[in-house]
Amino acid sequence: MGLGVGIVGCGLIGRKRAAALAGHRLVACTDLLPERAGALAAATGATAVGGWRELLTLPGLDVVIVATTNDSLADISLGALEAGRHVLVEKPAARTVGELDTVAAAARRHGPLVRVGFNHRFHPALRKAHELFRQDAIGELMFVRGRYGHGGRPGYDREWRADPRRSGGGELIDQGVHLIDLAGWFLGDFESVVGSAHTYYWQMPVDDNVFLMLRTRPGQMAFLHASCTEWKNLFSLEVYGRRGKLHVEGLGGSYGTERVACYRMLPELGPPDTTIWEFPRGDDSWRAEFAEFAEDIRLNRQPEPGLTEARKALSIVEQVYQASGYPGGAKVQA
Amino acid sequence: MGLGVGIVGCGLIGRKRAAALAGHRLVACTDLLPERAGALAAATGATAVGGWRELLTLPGLDVVIVATTNDSLADISLGALEAGRHVLVEKPAARTVGELDTVAAAARRHGPLVRVGFNHRFHPALRKAHELFRQDAIGELMFVRGRYGHGGRPGYDREWRADPRRSGGGELIDQGVHLIDLAGWFLGDFESVVGSAHTYYWQMPVDDNVFLMLRTRPGQMAFLHASCTEWKNLFSLEVYGRRGKLHVEGLGGSYGTERVACYRMLPELGPPDTTIWEFPRGDDSWRAEFAEFAEDIRLNRQPEPGLTEARKALSIVEQVYQASGYPGGAKVQA
Amino acid sequence: MGLGVGIVGCGLIGRKRAAALAGHRLVACTDLLPERAGALAAATGATAVGGWRELLTLPGLDVVIVATTNDSLADISLGALEAGRHVLVEKPAARTVGELDTVAAAARRHGPLVRVGFNHRFHPALRKAHELFRQDAIGELMFVRGRYGHGGRPGYDREWRADPRRSGGGELIDQGVHLIDLAGWFLGDFESVVGSAHTYYWQMPVDDNVFLMLRTRPGQMAFLHASCTEWKNLFSLEVYGRRGKLHVEGLGGSYGTERVACYRMLPELGPPDTTIWEFPRGDDSWRAEFAEFAEDIRLNRQPEPGLTEARKALSIVEQVYQASGYPGGAKVQA
Amino acid sequence: MGLGVGIVGCGLIGRKRAAALAGHRLVACTDLLPERAGALAAATGATAVGGWRELLTLPGLDVVIVATTNDSLADISLGALEAGRHVLVEKPAARTVGELDTVAAAARRHGPLVRVGFNHRFHPALRKAHELFRQDAIGELMFVRGRYGHGGRPGYDREWRADPRRSGGGELIDQGVHLIDLAGWFLGDFESVVGSAHTYYWQMPVDDNVFLMLRTRPGQMAFLHASCTEWKNLFSLEVYGRRGKLHVEGLGGSYGTERVACYRMLPELGPPDTTIWEFPRGDDSWRAEFAEFAEDIRLNRQPEPGLTEARKALSIVEQVYQASGYPGGAKVQA
Repeated sequence: MGLGVGIVGCGLIGRKRAAALAGHRLVACTDLLPERAGALAAATGATAVGGWRELLTLPGLDVVIVATTNDSLADISLGALEAGRHVLVEKPAARTVGELDTVAAAARRHGPLVRVGFNHRFHPALRKAHELFRQDAIGELMFVRGRYGHGGRPGYDREWRADPRRSGGGELIDQGVHLIDLAGWFLGDFESVVGSAHTYYWQMPVDDNVFLMLRTRPGQMAFLHASCTEWKNLFSLEVYGRRGKLHVEGLGGSYGTERVACYRMLPELGPPDTTIWEFPRGDDSWRAEFAEFAEDIRLNRQPEPGLTEARKALSIVEQVYQASGYPGGAKVQA
Repeated sequence: MGLGVGIVGCGLIGRKRAAALAGHRLVACTDLLPERAGALAAATGATAVGGWRELLTLPGLDVVIVATTNDSLADISLGALEAGRHVLVEKPAARTVGELDTVAAAARRHGPLVRVGFNHRFHPALRKAHELFRQDAIGELMFVRGRYGHGGRPGYDREWRADPRRSGGGELIDQGVHLIDLAGWFLGDFESVVGSAHTYYWQMPVDDNVFLMLRTRPGQMAFLHASCTEWKNLFSLEVYGRRGKLHVEGLGGSYGTERVACYRMLPELGPPDTTIWEFPRGDDSWRAEFAEFAEDIRLNRQPEPGLTEARKALSIVEQVYQASGYPGGAKVQA
Repeated sequence: MGLGVGIVGCGLIGRKRAAALAGHRLVACTDLLPERAGALAAATGATAVGGWRELLTLPGLDVVIVATTNDSLADISLGALEAGRHVLVEKPAARTVGELDTVAAAARRHGPLVRVGFNHRFHPALRKAHELFRQDAIGELMFVRGRYGHGGRPGYDREWRADPRRSGGGELIDQGVHLIDLAGWFLGDFESVVGSAHTYYWQMPVDDNVFLMLRTRPGQMAFLHASCTEWKNLFSLEVYGRRGKLHVEGLGGSYGTERVACYRMLPELGPPDTTIWEFPRGDDSWRAEFAEFAEDIRLNRQPEPGLTEARKALSIVEQVYQASGYPGGAKVQA
Repeated sequence: MGLGVGIVGCGLIGRKRAAALAGHRLVACTDLLPERAGALAAATGATAVGGWRELLTLPGLDVVIVATTNDSLADISLGALEAGRHVLVEKPAARTVGELDTVAAAARRHGPLVRVGFNHRFHPALRKAHELFRQDAIGELMFVRGRYGHGGRPGYDREWRADPRRSGGGELIDQGVHLIDLAGWFLGDFESVVGSAHTYYWQMPVDDNVFLMLRTRPGQMAFLHASCTEWKNLFSLEVYGRRGKLHVEGLGGSYGTERVACYRMLPELGPPDTTIWEFPRGDDSWRAEFAEFAEDIRLNRQPEPGLTEARKALSIVEQVYQASGYPGGAKVQA
């Protein structure tokens, strides 16, 4: 009869999650704005409750989805684990490594599973790209290039993401962590971190651009840039192997049709053989991700990406913020 | 009646130069392989001579084009300047800053002009992009992204570019210097240099990939990658201003049709207004560059890019090679 | 203080019209489904009335927009003209030439203006293309190619467009008339009409594909195909002159980003110089079209496209249906 | 040890054939310009002879490739058949159906095989498209759209193709026959032919544009346009089935990278699943076509496309020329 799910945070992401439970059922929801919780409850038949602590006391609740602003991701996850619920927490899962470690300790202590919502891994083009990589379509990896960004909107610098206490940082901790997570999915752990965060355009104390050079022990490079001054929305991940290249572009909508190209070199080199798959039918990553979590729970299997992967990404975020003069995600005034 | 031109080095580039003298006339040519010089002389009516020192003694010679392998660029330029000839020397103009400084000293001492053949500035899409930038189409600059590369060919690692004594380095000093020069053309001088050279694929002591983060004093970034494991040939330069973006792609031929897109933001943000110019008629950069040099000479005007710009680029090359364990362009054995 | 507007038909198109009055004000609306009229009235502050005859009696009504199914376009337009209102009637303005002629007679008799909603002329890429054509960017015209279509949706053959009594025909009278109108906008009147309507896929008595060869007196050709089995939505209009080509593609949304390319030949022929304008900001044709009508009214100027242009298009539709065995828009059973 | 091949006509096409014999060997060649035959012989080790009748007397000659202007295709094919040689004759194989019928009669009488060089069927994207079609990837066919053209070059109207006695017609018999052949390859025989030839631009008595509507007995349509005022070179073939679409674009070089897209509809319709194959490695159609002919000969199998397919195409050409006022391929003066 499926899992009982509670959602904390009924904003854009919480509503996407509610619509993508893959056959499981929404039991309850809550939001700092009661009318948002009420609207979602009315649309789904769930119960709206007054706060996340109350939600955690409800019967029939197997999974808690934490889809709040970044400043309460860790606290609510912690509470849910202590209440014995499995947790799907949105990326970045916490504002800092320190926050995250309290969640990890609770998970070890209490037992439930934690999945971290790096949903990009579940986009169809990225799933296809990783599958091709695992099938050895392009050989041993050399480097990854990633570009990800959007152009903001009027008032973007007055939204919660621009407030370091709520967000823990700017573009790096928002879209940048997706690039870091995806690059690590292909390349493995990064041993060396070089990065540079900047606030070029928006009137805010957090970064609007970040440039990264992450290196694995064998020397493979992830060369990544995330930006919220990327005037024409862009997602591009290029993965280079010794025998070819995978290129994922687009995420649907304003990011353009999602596609993956596979370029395979022939022994005589020259232009590569090329096959391209396009996915114009929209983003089903949320549904696929939740279905995977349900399977984790059924098999009592450690989710991946989970707290381990989130910790790796957050550790890189912290190092870059520290080195760029944004300790804690906020720019130090000159 | 135009300038009299001599060409030293009758390989691919020398022959392109000979075909693009913009109305001026080839007087003489020479090459280490006499048959190459003979063939070019036969095709053009020029005189083939036995060596560059002999060439410099010929009458009617106003300009010497130095299109040899990198190891003799500086020596021949020096000789030509001492013989009172103007010099168009191919990039990178020398293997090291030290070599280049001897040329610069000679230029100051003897008077003739030196242009350095960073021909990419003369590609029509890049000319158009820079013109749009100067007309303030995109506002104050924030950063530049550049990706440039090719996929080599069988035996690429046995060509002269793979021999650090002849080339002074690998991909960085070959295609990378073009990116460095173009980024500086838009952003100005770089104060901070971070870079990482690698030899991932080819069996050679020089680098086949280089990743760069170059920063100006005000903090603008050039985020550049050059590669000779770029399996599908690629040239992309993205220039971001506060009000829009310029994107140059392609260089013709296997790099794809050359084009520049200009994205301009409206005050309400959202998708930018977009105009794209395509240049399918092929590369006239060589002709345009030589015409510009002829005009420099007519006006006794310092060429740009000249030795100053080449020195900036070579200095960055040296810093990156040093920091990456490729002193002198060759990888230190572990 | 602007024009007072009434809308008859509050479906998809009526609501688009209501949202695009270009500063004028919606006074009243009506629909066969009272709840649709009520919802639009509630959203806009207009008055919902029980029927179009009642709407015509309201004071302060300058313009009536007729956005119903095709079977009542002519009747309501006629009534509105008799009531002294200007009329913006959606294409095709009537099911047949005969119906349309009664409207034209009333317009001549009563005086108000009639604009026919061939809104595609107001899409930004088509406006730009026609402006380039008028500026002689491509020289004297030779021919036009047009491809327009969509892939339907489940149950498409049970919608009103599939019922010839309500629609007057299928794909030809739906999307085909847009192509006919646009081709005539560039080429002028067609003297010879060859066409072939077919019902290949959908289970309906009207056509789902139509192929057209329309010829002007000097021999210029419009080569047009409209389809509702065009699996990937497509709009493409290619206009060829003696010195170049204009290519409009996309209409936004599922038709892809709207763009126009201008190809200009140089005297030496070879690849053309190319400039492309993209319009990613969405469709403002409805607003622009209404603003144009307001200006027609202010200047007492005959709208174009108006009844004359609609009659030309409908006459072609009738000829093709007749010749293809679809008299009255419905396929004759074998 | 392979087939012995003779080539009659050492122009562009003859030389392409010589370079694509798929392991078989060129024995002899001839051309109206002896220096062209001499050059090809020198480059290949073949024997240059003074005329095609002499060539036919040589020993060791299994196959004759007829790559002349259209006016001698039939005569030479006839001679070769009478001499007992297999024939690969370039499209259109003859100027008229009447000429072709003499060849067909000789083939029946004498026995050797005749393949007609509709090489486009052997382009990799078209091979892939037809294979997908045969595998039922898109279901039962409904219609085909084809657009094919180039932009000529200065003096194009003074070349042999512009002389109806040598060519038998203009664009229709040149590029148009390829479209007709390809459409028939997918759709089968055409029962109804509507077409319109025009001379819009070039100063020549033959057509420079042709528009075609060809219909099979069940009503499937081929909607085709060929043009030598197609300013930006274009090849596009769109094949529509009840469950999807195949789209071939490009032929390499100035026609753009060759590719085929396969769009497959899901039961719920909406955007199709899309897979694209690109073939950037250039045109190997000539080699593949000759290898197929060698296999025909080995198996004594009727080549396809052969005289039967050429006759169908030429018959359509004649009907269109007749109906458009170009009897015999030349425009009747008004």
